Amino acid sequence: MTASLAAPPPPPIPRLDAPLTPDALADALRAFSTSYYANHPFHQLMHEGRLSRPQLQGWVANRLAYQRAIPRKDAAILSNCPDPGVRRLWIQRIVDHDGTAPGTGGIEMWIRLGEALGVPREEMEDERHVLPAVRFAAEAYVTFCRTRPWIDAVASSLTELFAPDLMRRRIAAFAEHYPWVDRAGLEYFRSRLDQAPRDSGHGLALVRQHCTTVETQYRAFDALRFKLDVLWAMIDAIHHAYADGTRAGA
Amino acid sequence: MTASLAAPPPPPIPRLDAPLTPDALADALRAFSTSYYANHPFHQLMHEGRLSRPQLQGWVANRLAYQRAIPRKDAAILSNCPDPGVRRLWIQRIVDHDGTAPGTGGIEMWIRLGEALGVPREEMEDERHVLPAVRFAAEAYVTFCRTRPWIDAVASSLTELFAPDLMRRRIAAFAEHYPWVDRAGLEYFRSRLDQAPRDSGHGLALVRQHCTTVETQYRAFDALRFKLDVLWAMIDAIHHAYADGTRAGA
Repeated sequence: MTASLAAPPPPPIPRLDAPLTPDALADALRAFSTSYYANHPFHQLMHEGRLSRPQLQGWVANRLAYQRAIPRKDAAILSNCPDPGVRRLWIQRIVDHDGTAPGTGGIEMWIRLGEALGVPREEMEDERHVLPAVRFAAEAYVTFCRTRPWIDAVASSLTELFAPDLMRRRIAAFAEHYPWVDRAGLEYFRSRLDQAPRDSGHGLALVRQHCTTVETQYRAFDALRFKLDVLWAMIDAIHHAYADGTRAGA
Repeated sequence: MTASLAAPPPPPIPRLDAPLTPDALADALRAFSTSYYANHPFHQLMHEGRLSRPQLQGWVANRLAYQRAIPRKDAAILSNCPDPGVRRLWIQRIVDHDGTAPGTGGIEMWIRLGEALGVPREEMEDERHVLPAVRFAAEAYVTFCRTRPWIDAVASSLTELFAPDLMRRRIAAFAEHYPWVDRAGLEYFRSRLDQAPRDSGHGLALVRQHCTTVETQYRAFDALRFKLDVLWAMIDAIHHAYADGTRAGA
């Protein structure tokens, strides 16, 4: 196994003798970006234009399992949260992914991205290409949100703090390196440019408000590390299956 | 213990040698109305105008625990349901209860009903009057929806088939027997006159579509019986606490 396929560098969890201020807590969570899967070799290959069409197809078909898990994990958070005011905002995430009518929403946009990359809709929807490791990681996220306190699950969503940069790089990389992909297929990435900052802003405000003790701040760190592992595990499995060796031999 | 305080008459679960047709299944489920808590002595007293103001206050303060559990059980169903098309309709139930802005939605309407009955908002919101048996029943419903297959949880919602009749009787009873209650406070009942038929129509269509085997039809019966027990247990606890003896001695 090469170093590039090993587990992600562990995030910088601070040692706390006393609770951090909300601002310091936010800074500490943002510092976890060093473990974000944007840094995974597969994404480096993607952004450098070094992935083949079949490799991108493997990626997009697998990631649908994660996209489909998102509304279920967000509903699990709603189910555990006793505050109607929190639920009233959080529910928008489910609407964003499921849409308001057939043919709308983030899941549908991801399927269209798959079609733009040349994967037939049927092969996306029946998940025939989805690797067990990807499915297990996505389901681990749903289970985490079902079984942990709702504010921990909110903290786990804060990888969205790091998403807009990744989305911008993807949009640029596809335009530059993969011109055969219909621009309309990239609508999912563009939608996340608006949604991710709104969502991470709400999530971060809740964590700042509710995680005011050493114990709850450690739980927030643990939750965000867990989610970083989920994303890393998925892209790692995809990398092993489709792109291992590309770096050395492309 | 008197007969009137005993468990509800068990619903008429049919013996199946073969799956029922969808129409026969719907008829069989509708026949469970004989176990609906509209038949509980407390509701009879309510509709006959024989409840005092403190008894109505005890009822309305306790039932808030159930109203507050509803969006969490509906979110649990979303979390377990893999079909975005089902989720897209089911999510409206959460919006109905939580509202779209502070001061809107079914939970808020129930609190205003409490205020109309003379329970201060603070005493409603802090749940100081909620009996353990009521809380356990409401939480049992959330747990059922979290842990059972989503279609079973949908079947458990079908007490809504029986709700409009009860709402109409309540609205009439309040107008006739409790004229001191501000009509605006009854907005919750009026809202359910529209929502319950829409919701039970969706729920029943899903059960007709998905429960096509003997095993799944028995599960639907079991789920609806469970939910009837939840409602009965709550009103029974309220009756014991506030109205026991009213029938004999009022």
